[in-house]
Amino acid sequence: MQVYLDNNTATRVPKEVLDAMLPYFTESYGNPSGLYTLALEADEIVEKGQEEIASRIGAERDEITFTTGATESNNLAIKGVAYANRHRGTHLLTSKVEHPSVLNTFKALEKEGFKVDYIGVDKYGLVNLDELKGLLTDETQLVSIMAVNHVIGTIMPIAEIGKLLAEREKRPYFHVDAAELYGKMPVNVNDANIDLMSISGHLIHGPKGSGALYSRKRTRIRAQVHGSSSKFVLKPGLENTPAIAGFTKASQMAFAGMEDHLSHVKGLSSQLMKGIESGIEDAQFNGPRGEARSPYNVNYTFKYAEGEAITLQLDMYGISVATGSACASQLLQVNYVLTEIGLQHEDAHGSIRFTLSRYNTRKEIEYTVKSLAEAYEVLKKVSAFKPS
Amino acid sequence: MQVYLDNNTATRVPKEVLDAMLPYFTESYGNPSGLYTLALEADEIVEKGQEEIASRIGAERDEITFTTGATESNNLAIKGVAYANRHRGTHLLTSKVEHPSVLNTFKALEKEGFKVDYIGVDKYGLVNLDELKGLLTDETQLVSIMAVNHVIGTIMPIAEIGKLLAEREKRPYFHVDAAELYGKMPVNVNDANIDLMSISGHLIHGPKGSGALYSRKRTRIRAQVHGSSSKFVLKPGLENTPAIAGFTKASQMAFAGMEDHLSHVKGLSSQLMKGIESGIEDAQFNGPRGEARSPYNVNYTFKYAEGEAITLQLDMYGISVATGSACASQLLQVNYVLTEIGLQHEDAHGSIRFTLSRYNTRKEIEYTVKSLAEAYEVLKKVSAFKPS
Repeated sequence: MQVYLDNNTATRVPKEVLDAMLPYFTESYGNPSGLYTLALEADEIVEKGQEEIASRIGAERDEITFTTGATESNNLAIKGVAYANRHRGTHLLTSKVEHPSVLNTFKALEKEGFKVDYIGVDKYGLVNLDELKGLLTDETQLVSIMAVNHVIGTIMPIAEIGKLLAEREKRPYFHVDAAELYGKMPVNVNDANIDLMSISGHLIHGPKGSGALYSRKRTRIRAQVHGSSSKFVLKPGLENTPAIAGFTKASQMAFAGMEDHLSHVKGLSSQLMKGIESGIEDAQFNGPRGEARSPYNVNYTFKYAEGEAITLQLDMYGISVATGSACASQLLQVNYVLTEIGLQHEDAHGSIRFTLSRYNTRKEIEYTVKSLAEAYEVLKKVSAFKPS
Repeated sequence: MQVYLDNNTATRVPKEVLDAMLPYFTESYGNPSGLYTLALEADEIVEKGQEEIASRIGAERDEITFTTGATESNNLAIKGVAYANRHRGTHLLTSKVEHPSVLNTFKALEKEGFKVDYIGVDKYGLVNLDELKGLLTDETQLVSIMAVNHVIGTIMPIAEIGKLLAEREKRPYFHVDAAELYGKMPVNVNDANIDLMSISGHLIHGPKGSGALYSRKRTRIRAQVHGSSSKFVLKPGLENTPAIAGFTKASQMAFAGMEDHLSHVKGLSSQLMKGIESGIEDAQFNGPRGEARSPYNVNYTFKYAEGEAITLQLDMYGISVATGSACASQLLQVNYVLTEIGLQHEDAHGSIRFTLSRYNTRKEIEYTVKSLAEAYEVLKKVSAFKPS
């Protein structure tokens, strides 16, 4: 049995999405800025796509820029706002548990003279609102906080932060990395006072290389790539129409069935958690439980095995998962989100992240629980950190 | 009959290329950096793709970074080198007829304190080598010259420029935008002393959103996007495996049949030129003839009609072309390459660019010549600039 449980790094493209892309590869392949019919057909899908995304978050069509994914959107939002507002102030705020495309962008800005504060989180991964409030100054130009944590699924208090920022006399821009939220749970940029929002297409069963940035009208922001003029002020160059068509279809499918998907995935994550907790006594749950957590994410530490070993063992059963183990990282460091919520190095090292999709089934989860228990028994026997 | 002649803005994806992409949408869709089998399959295509591109230009595998196309490659090469070498000198050199993704990148760098010189061209679009030599100083960090002009097809003296730069004691980096060359004519980065080369996938029948940057080992260059670590130091974030698979196949097909394609397209461009020149007496050829020109490009001015009108008229015949007309540009300016080679505003305004592909046929060209003559006769009658 093949069970894919790494859905918040990459997802499968279903037939419906692929079918929506095909005409833009082989028929309406023109440059959307051209004057001919093939170009106009290509242009239509760009506008249709903008309308699809905008309508789901309470935005207007031309507030949507298509990008290659949340990495590009995060870079564009953060650098674009930081540079365009530099003369107004150089203070920026984010959290310690953001995605690397946010954290590394802020680190790069620090080298250029920006002052960045990184807000800490509690043991459930929730940003400390008092710390955030205390760090805000009249120099603060941008606050960037993710909607859902990519490692432990913590749902951040985005609406509260938005309200808090909106009440300030000198109001900073509010950017939200919604890569793990959009298409899975509802969000409205007006209700939450969001000025910029990064969206991923390929995490909701759209194609790789698809994503979007919402940027509220009158936001002072600068494009980060230069090129020939396109439909998007913030993103010059040829529009990727097949990716846009696929992303649009993926978004339609995600929103059309959102409640059903959510309830199905909630069922799967409960099943997985119950299975693990009743079958493996050393399993230690990471992050928040219940409503504070995205049901698309389940994260455990298995105390007496390395995450990499579990991952490889599960792969032999046909099961794909991710780990916070240092061996899985190019820098040989354990996952920073896990240490920020207080895990010891060895506990982060033994962590496994299961990320779900609406396409996963109860049978798959049953098989995963069973295989995991078997695999862990074997690994525990050869473990260097054996239980005493 | 449908005739697509805008092949240097976007191309059709043939079945072979699409078939090469499909498994990476629906089967091997994992994150190439993951530890499981689905990830390793995805990783393999990235390395296979790097080897394909590297082997065609005399490079090594890890000198190839996959990007979303020549726009991103140009931005990365130019800003990446300019920023990484700023402390050594701030002088940069390019030409006046580069693609907007090169020109606009240099203009942005000027605003940040870099000193950029733009070399002029002769009436055939060839860069002035004496001017280039005269502008080089010990402060010059980068020279960026395109391989083939995108508007009039001029083949630039890349090897001569490379030699000239290699002979200098303080040698600047040499970047070549090869978007209109790679896959159409041979190029070797060692023979031409090229340090950085931008390559487009979607101009050689690969998918939109595919391209590469060649960057010679030990080049001092900085990534322009920040994110999670990937296979590419210069381009963090999830690798777009379907795009890489499609681009790889497109490259294989382009090189396997390169001589045949070139001879077929040479035949088509001669046929088109003969047809136009024998049928339309007001037609005025733009750019160089013969060996100095890429046969993939044919550009004419039709003196007594606007380019936009001709484009729309041809579209009614099912023929897709591009124009240098001001009306086709968002800034309502005629094409700058045409004015740089000395065309008057009204002549640039009446220009039509036909760009060919190996998939075009002699029948299509015959139909285009006939339709163009008919369309032009109609337009000439209603023209404001009627012949006296």
